[in-house]
Amino acid sequence: MSASVTGLAESATEPHVFVIFGSTGDLARRKLIPAFYELQDREDFRHRSVVLGVGRQTLTDDEFRAEAAEALRAAGLDPDDTERWCSACLHYQSISDGFEALADRIRRIEADHSLLAENRAFYLALPPQVFETTVTGLAEAGLNHSAGWTRLVVEKPFGHSFESAVALNDLVHTVFDEEQIYRIDHYLGKDTVQNLLVFRFANALFESAWNRDRIEEVQITVAESLGVEDRAGYYDQAGAVRDMVQSHLAQLLTLVAMEPPTRLEAAAIRDEKVKVLAAVRAIDPERVVWGQYATSSGIDGTIPGYTDDLGQDSSTETFVALELFIDNWRWEGVPFRLRTGKKLPGKATSIAVVFKEAPISLFGPEHAGHAQANVLMLTIQPDEGFKLFFDVKGPGEGAPLRTEAFTFSYQEAFGDLPDAYETLLGDVIDGDQTLFVRGDEVERSWHLFDPLLESPHEVVAYEAGVDWGPPSAAQLVGQHGWLEQA
Amino acid sequence: MSASVTGLAESATEPHVFVIFGSTGDLARRKLIPAFYELQDREDFRHRSVVLGVGRQTLTDDEFRAEAAEALRAAGLDPDDTERWCSACLHYQSISDGFEALADRIRRIEADHSLLAENRAFYLALPPQVFETTVTGLAEAGLNHSAGWTRLVVEKPFGHSFESAVALNDLVHTVFDEEQIYRIDHYLGKDTVQNLLVFRFANALFESAWNRDRIEEVQITVAESLGVEDRAGYYDQAGAVRDMVQSHLAQLLTLVAMEPPTRLEAAAIRDEKVKVLAAVRAIDPERVVWGQYATSSGIDGTIPGYTDDLGQDSSTETFVALELFIDNWRWEGVPFRLRTGKKLPGKATSIAVVFKEAPISLFGPEHAGHAQANVLMLTIQPDEGFKLFFDVKGPGEGAPLRTEAFTFSYQEAFGDLPDAYETLLGDVIDGDQTLFVRGDEVERSWHLFDPLLESPHEVVAYEAGVDWGPPSAAQLVGQHGWLEQA
Repeated sequence: MSASVTGLAESATEPHVFVIFGSTGDLARRKLIPAFYELQDREDFRHRSVVLGVGRQTLTDDEFRAEAAEALRAAGLDPDDTERWCSACLHYQSISDGFEALADRIRRIEADHSLLAENRAFYLALPPQVFETTVTGLAEAGLNHSAGWTRLVVEKPFGHSFESAVALNDLVHTVFDEEQIYRIDHYLGKDTVQNLLVFRFANALFESAWNRDRIEEVQITVAESLGVEDRAGYYDQAGAVRDMVQSHLAQLLTLVAMEPPTRLEAAAIRDEKVKVLAAVRAIDPERVVWGQYATSSGIDGTIPGYTDDLGQDSSTETFVALELFIDNWRWEGVPFRLRTGKKLPGKATSIAVVFKEAPISLFGPEHAGHAQANVLMLTIQPDEGFKLFFDVKGPGEGAPLRTEAFTFSYQEAFGDLPDAYETLLGDVIDGDQTLFVRGDEVERSWHLFDPLLESPHEVVAYEAGVDWGPPSAAQLVGQHGWLEQA
Repeated sequence: MSASVTGLAESATEPHVFVIFGSTGDLARRKLIPAFYELQDREDFRHRSVVLGVGRQTLTDDEFRAEAAEALRAAGLDPDDTERWCSACLHYQSISDGFEALADRIRRIEADHSLLAENRAFYLALPPQVFETTVTGLAEAGLNHSAGWTRLVVEKPFGHSFESAVALNDLVHTVFDEEQIYRIDHYLGKDTVQNLLVFRFANALFESAWNRDRIEEVQITVAESLGVEDRAGYYDQAGAVRDMVQSHLAQLLTLVAMEPPTRLEAAAIRDEKVKVLAAVRAIDPERVVWGQYATSSGIDGTIPGYTDDLGQDSSTETFVALELFIDNWRWEGVPFRLRTGKKLPGKATSIAVVFKEAPISLFGPEHAGHAQANVLMLTIQPDEGFKLFFDVKGPGEGAPLRTEAFTFSYQEAFGDLPDAYETLLGDVIDGDQTLFVRGDEVERSWHLFDPLLESPHEVVAYEAGVDWGPPSAAQLVGQHGWLEQA
């Protein structure tokens, strides 16, 4: 589990330089710079952390600071404070000057800021095409090790197929040890995702029912209401399986299905996650539904289809629903149904655990209010929280059973949750790999989903903003249908 | 289960006369008359139901109607409507004129109101002393049977000991069959109490954990903030065991602990309830704590003790806490802790089901927020609803586990619940005995608790309105302590 649970965060932060490749890109601006700014709230960060932006542009430190300050203002953070922080802790180096110049610059910064322990993290917020040259360049400049620690943070996608993922891992492993590598899947940084383990292993009531004897099926949904927006170029090469299923949905699957780890340590937890993926039976292509959003017209006007957004014809899937089984003692025979898509009628990431019905019903068919089995709905985002649906006696005479819900809201209990990147960057600095994806985990996931992409399949149109995928997606699930988080 | 769940209420109400003995008493005024008035809202009641009040006073119908209208107004019911109903459906007969006169009057009313089916219910809202003469009187006038149905409704206390309860049952059984007898424990009329069976047997998630493997202990609390008020005379002869434990707490115990009935019928359900009582091991007198509230002084002034309220010395208990075990496969070794008392710091009837902790804790001692095991708190009254306590990851870095609660509120889901007496009177008329206590059940309960009263015991003082009973009550329970519903 993350430092947030193992308690590592209590220890003082080790002095370090955090290098961001792609520091003027979208991810850096929207997520990384604000996350570093928020981390400065931690007292143990003061005077121990410097961020060095790296990019192809030629910028002075002050120009970069101005950009960063603008990004922070756009994120709603206090301008006075932001400028003070930017000038104290932000530097910039153009990669056009080469990796040796970068190495010199890092050493100069370490001297100027008294960060002589040589602890360094490199965040590759870069497109896949420049990944190899960057890793190689770091190594050639001797930046893959130091007197302190050196850590490499890698953004997804981790390859675009099983083969390319293996090749990518091989490349990185020639230069860095696995213990230095932090593969980001930002879902793992969400409190609600981390809580999956807490909820399961701190609450015996649920964990004792968390198996094939008591559970009918598990549904995992990552529904987006947006389309591909300005990522159409990348997205058309990827599609929903590569972009979402192989990463986010596979992560949620492993956390829901894994055995208890021997202890709350990165190695033990990641071992158990890999075991889940290794136990998944080859997915039946007949139990996969592929969709692409098509133009729809409604009272709010026309919603453009995927090929309109892209500007050309395409057979890339923007929706996929599938069924899989985990062949182990805990889960044999329990269907896991996964779905994700763009321009769906709602936006929600949720996990619905559908428990088995009572073996007999004491309550006759006249109790029409008895609508469903016990369902535990874990909503990852938005409206973070849980609902547990159960049947209760309706009020008064002649009352049918009613399905009602226990509810719990993170917002009501805790207020706003921290951003995932803040958690993950803090864990990189703390040296906690728990919330990062291990090399074998990535490969296992690709090994599972890659064959689907290879198998012939028809991509069926669904109405943008109207349908929850093609009609056949509904036939993947049992009598309960797909359960909405609402 | 009651007509409210079995669906019997759908059928038309059979025409009847409902005779209330003690019709000018407190119970009739506060509960029975308002309940009958509310029942008239049921369309199938119109022109089929007449109430005949019986008492020692000599009153005309109109005088009785005026008293009833006053009682309805005091209960907050609409005066216009109440007077119309009173004059249409209410009559009065003095028992000073004898039982033959009563029989004549009933027959006259049946003729006048065209209720010729001779369906009759007799509600004995009477002190125990006149119980025998009333039952005998009814029999001598031939009122223990009729061409239609004849039902006898009996208020608690059902005797004051095992022996007296057996004698009382024997007496009644000489005149009425058990199928004619409806022993009221008004707790069973509460929707929240009836829901115990629905909640257990319609929700497989909970029922599958409802046993010695998963449950650590069960606590049943009936806490009152009031003292004995104007019932001191009666109460001093009874005490908490006779007044509360033998009846209300025993009923809650049986509903929480019973096996699933073969079907939702009175006989099947009551069979299972009796089996629970029959399986309770003789209670260890060392595991019983007796208390009596004593004068206390606080910022709100002095709260008088029990002997002040009573006006004389007494060793009657106003508080009792005890531990018992049910020797069957489901419950062996699981302690059931019961407590009830007057002038406690809070008012609540609740059942706390404490589930076992996880076999190992993955979360270290630094997670100080981990306060308790999973607890299902069923609040019978007031604030009717459930809470399910569970552990969740606190927000952000360095966060301890936090114990939070799923919540469900009847009020929020359903609005106001009907009064227990309305439910129970409706069930008497519908001929559904489910929510009434069977003769053998009463005897079993007395058999269980009577020996405690016989065994020597010390009654320890506790501060009125301040203490939750004597300090030794806290030692009856484990590390969790007594769980409050708050």
